[in-house]
Amino acid sequence: MNWQISKLNDSLKANIQTQIDIKTKPLGSLGQLESLAMQLSLIAQTHNTELKAERCTILIFAADHGIADAGVSIAPSEVTGQMVANFIEGGAAINCFCRVNQINLKVIDAGVKFPPNIQSEHLINQWISAGTLNIAEQSAMTLTQATKAIEKGACVAKAQIEQGTDVIGFGDMGIANTSSASALLCVLLAQPAEQTVGRGTGISDEQFECKKALVQQAIERVLIKHEKTDLSQLNSLSMFELLAELGGFEIAQMVGAMLKTAELGKPVVVDGFIVSVAALIAYKVNQNIADYFIFAHQSNEQAHLAILNYFDASPLLQLNLRLGEGTGAALAMPLIKSAVEFYNHMATFEHANISAVG
Amino acid sequence: MNWQISKLNDSLKANIQTQIDIKTKPLGSLGQLESLAMQLSLIAQTHNTELKAERCTILIFAADHGIADAGVSIAPSEVTGQMVANFIEGGAAINCFCRVNQINLKVIDAGVKFPPNIQSEHLINQWISAGTLNIAEQSAMTLTQATKAIEKGACVAKAQIEQGTDVIGFGDMGIANTSSASALLCVLLAQPAEQTVGRGTGISDEQFECKKALVQQAIERVLIKHEKTDLSQLNSLSMFELLAELGGFEIAQMVGAMLKTAELGKPVVVDGFIVSVAALIAYKVNQNIADYFIFAHQSNEQAHLAILNYFDASPLLQLNLRLGEGTGAALAMPLIKSAVEFYNHMATFEHANISAVG
Repeated sequence: MNWQISKLNDSLKANIQTQIDIKTKPLGSLGQLESLAMQLSLIAQTHNTELKAERCTILIFAADHGIADAGVSIAPSEVTGQMVANFIEGGAAINCFCRVNQINLKVIDAGVKFPPNIQSEHLINQWISAGTLNIAEQSAMTLTQATKAIEKGACVAKAQIEQGTDVIGFGDMGIANTSSASALLCVLLAQPAEQTVGRGTGISDEQFECKKALVQQAIERVLIKHEKTDLSQLNSLSMFELLAELGGFEIAQMVGAMLKTAELGKPVVVDGFIVSVAALIAYKVNQNIADYFIFAHQSNEQAHLAILNYFDASPLLQLNLRLGEGTGAALAMPLIKSAVEFYNHMATFEHANISAVG
Repeated sequence: MNWQISKLNDSLKANIQTQIDIKTKPLGSLGQLESLAMQLSLIAQTHNTELKAERCTILIFAADHGIADAGVSIAPSEVTGQMVANFIEGGAAINCFCRVNQINLKVIDAGVKFPPNIQSEHLINQWISAGTLNIAEQSAMTLTQATKAIEKGACVAKAQIEQGTDVIGFGDMGIANTSSASALLCVLLAQPAEQTVGRGTGISDEQFECKKALVQQAIERVLIKHEKTDLSQLNSLSMFELLAELGGFEIAQMVGAMLKTAELGKPVVVDGFIVSVAALIAYKVNQNIADYFIFAHQSNEQAHLAILNYFDASPLLQLNLRLGEGTGAALAMPLIKSAVEFYNHMATFEHANISAVG
């Protein structure tokens, strides 16, 4: 797969800055919303037409993880499918935030082990398998499955954009997916499990030690299989190989969806830890995508902070969320819409006949 | 004036926490939105009925300051009236954020020097005088005016709540009002001007030095007049006396509006530096109001941080805004609505038939 992601055209910056500076406010006084308007304008490749954030969509990618059976999570794999049903019935936190902020929500079954028996236009079936295998013991999926997952992810993003979505936010659901994400991060940042494993949604001390040991076991398995002695040597693996080794189906589909979203010139709103790992993988595939990332929320997970630092990101929100589901992305959407609205419709000094300020 | 602000009933906490904890999410995973839902429930004095944040209103209090003529601001006093016109015509940043977030906006002319010739249902005339006098040289206003300002502020809040407003956010507009707010803070926190004067919307080094000197001159004038030698001795002044000495009309009206809002059992959303100073004055009048404050935005102004620390506040947003107008409050409203929506409508584990999590 070859991704045609345009590098942003920095030569537009001066003109965009002028558009921002002629608005009726002291220079720079809208802080981070000004940087956001700049980024959105660069992504839209224009300084003189209206930006669009009317239709915002959250895509939640859901899948299961074989490692869950080892007890790394506070809940059993059954909960992934139950939460998918909850999303479709409108009862989850993400539904509440989408309702308040008029966000379109789609749930993608990327590989749920116990899928709910439910039909809905909001549920998109892109099922690949009934969860990954246990990565501590074997490859999460085949290379063919990894490739298929990335392709399917790209398809769903393309379809949403063709149906008029202006901004896509990414969310995840998958019991034990922080184990998979932590293992991926070990390889991506060449750090041991000790550095990348957190408590997820709130496990006990014992589960925490078990989770670290299993993630470390998973990356050691990958080292042995690929005949490497050091994590940094694993950067020779392709992203397909990496996803095939460590999973999961939802992460792989997100990677494809993010790359396609950026390729089609739309912003990619990055939620919490799992989504940020997918973003980092997408970046390893095509570095141009970094300019399309809008980081929604900064959690307190050490490993999430490591990714944010890697991208030198200043997320829009710091609300101490640790839920996933795209909740941070949904809560950031009104800020994105607000940046777009001021850029499009705020009066200029000249138009409002106001004495110069700043 | 005597304010009947109910102390929050902490005995409701356990039941409210249960309402939060039975939702389909790991315990505590909605972070600051959970604390917000707790606070809103305590303010509503209930654990078992729906919270309300359907109708949110921003009140912008506008007035002028005599000290502006001394060159402490980046703009002349004419701009206050021009910005009032801009608010009414929908061209300012706050208008954009209110449109995006479906917030009702009212502008109160509390004492604009050059009021625009404009009629609108969104413009409320509570004019007291054509700006304050120069506080570096004399009292900002008379005691009678200060009292009248607080009463008028209370009236406008009462009217909004009677018309159905569930949540009120406070904003300010007034060229040079950071000088007045800094002088007030000197007395409130017993700190010299060096500690409380910031650059406002972005003045030069020279203006910054001038502003500090004038604010220091103002508080020394007040010390001499009241025959005190030390700032901490000024805590014997009533809040009426303090506002009469240091202004301004918009700050005094805000104090009255905040006290009335809390008295009527509604949350008070506090924006930036100016509004936070008004909040601190309201708190000195009746300490029970602190429980009704929702701090919207943390700016980088040192003096604003001092107030936030005083209240041990964790504002919802940190976006590096420095505009005033209630912009931070408006941007925080979707978070308040989101907290209310999850509290009211998120499914419980039992209802959604989900295996226990957390």
